[in-house]
Amino acid sequence: MNKKSVGEPCLARWAENIKRSALQEMLKEASKPGIVSFALGLPAPELFPAAEYSKAVEKVLTANANALQYGPPSLRLKEQIVKLMNRRGIQCAAEQVFLTAGAQQGMSLLARLLLNPGDRVITEELTYTGFIQVLQPFEPQILTVPTEFVDGMDVEAVGSHLSEGNRPALIYCMTDGHNPLGVSMSLKKRRRLLEIIRQYGSPVIEDDAYGFLQYDQELLPPLRSNEDRLIFYVGSFSKIIGPTLRVGWIVLPESLIPALSVVKEAADIDTTTLSQQAIAAYIDSGRLDDHILKLRSEYTLRRDAMLTQLEKHFPEGSRWNRPASGVFIWVELPDHIDADKLLGAAINAGVAFIPGSAFNLSDQARAKSSLRLNFSNSSQDKIEEGIKRLARVIRKFMTMRFERRGPIKRGP
Amino acid sequence: MNKKSVGEPCLARWAENIKRSALQEMLKEASKPGIVSFALGLPAPELFPAAEYSKAVEKVLTANANALQYGPPSLRLKEQIVKLMNRRGIQCAAEQVFLTAGAQQGMSLLARLLLNPGDRVITEELTYTGFIQVLQPFEPQILTVPTEFVDGMDVEAVGSHLSEGNRPALIYCMTDGHNPLGVSMSLKKRRRLLEIIRQYGSPVIEDDAYGFLQYDQELLPPLRSNEDRLIFYVGSFSKIIGPTLRVGWIVLPESLIPALSVVKEAADIDTTTLSQQAIAAYIDSGRLDDHILKLRSEYTLRRDAMLTQLEKHFPEGSRWNRPASGVFIWVELPDHIDADKLLGAAINAGVAFIPGSAFNLSDQARAKSSLRLNFSNSSQDKIEEGIKRLARVIRKFMTMRFERRGPIKRGP
Repeated sequence: MNKKSVGEPCLARWAENIKRSALQEMLKEASKPGIVSFALGLPAPELFPAAEYSKAVEKVLTANANALQYGPPSLRLKEQIVKLMNRRGIQCAAEQVFLTAGAQQGMSLLARLLLNPGDRVITEELTYTGFIQVLQPFEPQILTVPTEFVDGMDVEAVGSHLSEGNRPALIYCMTDGHNPLGVSMSLKKRRRLLEIIRQYGSPVIEDDAYGFLQYDQELLPPLRSNEDRLIFYVGSFSKIIGPTLRVGWIVLPESLIPALSVVKEAADIDTTTLSQQAIAAYIDSGRLDDHILKLRSEYTLRRDAMLTQLEKHFPEGSRWNRPASGVFIWVELPDHIDADKLLGAAINAGVAFIPGSAFNLSDQARAKSSLRLNFSNSSQDKIEEGIKRLARVIRKFMTMRFERRGPIKRGP
Repeated sequence: MNKKSVGEPCLARWAENIKRSALQEMLKEASKPGIVSFALGLPAPELFPAAEYSKAVEKVLTANANALQYGPPSLRLKEQIVKLMNRRGIQCAAEQVFLTAGAQQGMSLLARLLLNPGDRVITEELTYTGFIQVLQPFEPQILTVPTEFVDGMDVEAVGSHLSEGNRPALIYCMTDGHNPLGVSMSLKKRRRLLEIIRQYGSPVIEDDAYGFLQYDQELLPPLRSNEDRLIFYVGSFSKIIGPTLRVGWIVLPESLIPALSVVKEAADIDTTTLSQQAIAAYIDSGRLDDHILKLRSEYTLRRDAMLTQLEKHFPEGSRWNRPASGVFIWVELPDHIDADKLLGAAINAGVAFIPGSAFNLSDQARAKSSLRLNFSNSSQDKIEEGIKRLARVIRKFMTMRFERRGPIKRGP
């Protein structure tokens, strides 16, 4: 007997396991007023170029009401993206640029194009949950590699999977601005990963959604700068202009664009003409460069404010990194602290974060006592207040529940 | 040996069959200046409320730069959609409304939620190609039912499939403004289809993208007005404000919204906050009602202009319908005319359409000599000129290639 019974529509098999997690429910609490939220990866709203973007929309709609029509992808915007890519060290042609409704859609469309149900995919143990959501309907065989605290993906572990004959349909990689760790891959790792994937011809999604947010010095060039056949580079305007534009891009081999166009058309017909043209007008006005500099400078201050407060208030035995890109700091607390349990107490004390377990594809203990803290969406004052609150909760939590253990190092 | 060879990324199995068709190449030709195009289902750009929408965007962005941020679906917009739905005879709650990036995304998300690879789906023989694109990655077993010239889906044939034990995961239905036929289902058919799907508990996607474009009298209420468990109603602002907004909606059982939210988040995180708020502001300004009336009135004139010209110029043995909704007229030419071949000659003569074969899932001969003509995207003058050109080409085509056959009726 089929499990479908008369009267209730039946979900796809993978979807029957979808549950709203307790975590998600708790995060709803975290959006209440008075709570300092380090939870989500939101840009700073006070930095949005709202007036300029509004002007760009007006200009576009005044010039041509057809900006409200369906339309082919804007060649002008693609050419502007080519120039942006140059500044990231990537040489590409407008014909290799595919416009999407943001980086998330970029990954979703690429999965549709490249994955069969049950295929193998390589990701890190600690990885972006949005990519896992993309994979779930394919019920793939996910092979994980360790995420290293200092510089992300363990690329030798990728090599081991491949040399053992585990040929993945996709490898997922965040070269810079890792989510959740905030780290960047070293030059050595970038080179080695390219060697490995070339040897086996394995395609890689390179998620560079945060690549233009650079804090201390220029980031190293992404993998795509050295490999144009196997790297599917995913970029976005969400973090450098605004998420609501819903415009991002993929840089991929031109030969795959006709097939990807069919995938895109099936998903949502096309990427909003109005946003494409308004972004192009905004970039033409010459303001994007200054805006990115402003974001870098303000986010550097916020990152540094968070690092300073962590140093001042967080307990011994904690460690964290100094991200050169992205919007997150990853904090590993003493390993007897359960960050899932900590979250409830933290929200009661007026501060929110995401526990490391939310990003954890393996059973490694480290993630269970880790926190992902966002620094882009709170002012320096709020960051100071929020980290103080969090430190108080952690201390209380440690005293209430556990005896302090032996000597532990203070980081970073 | 695996078919993947070192050095070339391998597409998903279904995607290897994606080809840019000769038809699509020809339609590129059709967008050249001087060609009257009846090919695509585009709204009339001269009717877009561009100035009003631009004002709405400015208002929203001036009030709150956070309109550029990620955000939860707008409750205000959902409540406005509930009122729109009332005018379509549908009672629903805001909690049953799910916002999407348009009707196409609505169908794509529903397929993700409800379909397993290889599942059965029931569609008409002549159906919207965008829905077939949605299905392709699932490599489903597509069961077709005839499309009747006067009132669309043969619902008894749906009943036959179901009674034979062919339980579909989905049935796809266009109650009004059928694409490509332009027709509406009769009251009798609507009632009978509801009886049938209730008997078997089979879920239906009811695609009502054109439901607010009504020409002669009020359309009958959609299936969703009588059944809230099994009908997944899909609506859109694309045809009543503008496609570039990328906002549509699904009305579905509230219990499925958490799972659908995960599908949506994986697809593209969220629906543009700015469009949601600008549409809400535009509706609040009270202009949408008048705008819809203006569209109905102008599209009625264009439809009638096309009908008049068809009557005047098209050869005996042709027949067409008088659509009460939508943006298409379906013309069946004498059955020895191959509409695919006709298209090339038509484009040379400065007029374009889509041949029936593009929508044809079965081998029925009728579609091969049929044309889908769009009337919303051309002025009455252009419609007159375009139909004259098309009639000349058809005549020439008939004379050149075929002897006239026995007596044939003229329609409708």
